[in-house]
Amino acid sequence: MGQVRIALEPIGFVSTEYAEEGSKKRTDSVVSRIVLKKKYTKGLRGIEGYSHLFVLYYMHKVEKSERSQLLTRPKHRKELPEVGIFSTRQRNHPNPIGLTLVELLRHEANTLQVKNLDAFDGTPVLDIKPCNHRDIPRKIRLPSWWLRSQS
Amino acid sequence: MGQVRIALEPIGFVSTEYAEEGSKKRTDSVVSRIVLKKKYTKGLRGIEGYSHLFVLYYMHKVEKSERSQLLTRPKHRKELPEVGIFSTRQRNHPNPIGLTLVELLRHEANTLQVKNLDAFDGTPVLDIKPCNHRDIPRKIRLPSWWLRSQS
Repeated sequence: MGQVRIALEPIGFVSTEYAEEGSKKRTDSVVSRIVLKKKYTKGLRGIEGYSHLFVLYYMHKVEKSERSQLLTRPKHRKELPEVGIFSTRQRNHPNPIGLTLVELLRHEANTLQVKNLDAFDGTPVLDIKPCNHRDIPRKIRLPSWWLRSQS
Repeated sequence: MGQVRIALEPIGFVSTEYAEEGSKKRTDSVVSRIVLKKKYTKGLRGIEGYSHLFVLYYMHKVEKSERSQLLTRPKHRKELPEVGIFSTRQRNHPNPIGLTLVELLRHEANTLQVKNLDAFDGTPVLDIKPCNHRDIPRKIRLPSWWLRSQS
């Protein structure tokens, strides 16, 4: 069972000025475009009715060597505990699939203009899923170290 | 660029009584276990501080032939418009990656007990990401056909 082979194909790519680590500061207000392959254009019909989408993408710049780490100290801050990689949203999970909730600004043909997409220019997009009430927890609990890491 | 090859490896598997389509009705209260491969046990350290997680999984029962459809009528209801596959949460997207927000009930060694996971027994798990405030939209807008499809 452990040897299941999973092969995926990008449905499109991210187009943004946020090109490389360090080249442009990541901000909550970054606007990007998701350009789907033309053959998938019809698959977007009606998507403009949603305000928010989940974008799943393949973080192609994460090296395989970065993905063997299982413990990490959030933001490299010594006063925070060492926690498991799955307890963080860091990029270096064993499977480098990115997940970001974005605001949909505009849909035109095979292109979506979105806000807050935390992905570099050229990132392969794997899927787009509209956000509905089932994706929204009523109340969440977070670890105390997570809250401290935000200050 | 379109020929990027993306190969992923399961980090673990879903264990649940929800074995096959039709064998047990999908309910919001289904409790499942995610059993990670032992080599990833350490990666879960501290995850019990979170109330909610996103689980990404590979929907291995979706046949390739099901994934070529680009338009769909929600719940096969004639009075609803035909919309694009990316405008729905149906399983037959081109890349069959499932995404479910679950409630974390318990963490013990390499196993998580979770509530609401919409995945069959034996489903390969690709990633686990804790839910935080950035994943929660303040207010969402949904298409009118989506709202009608819920009644």
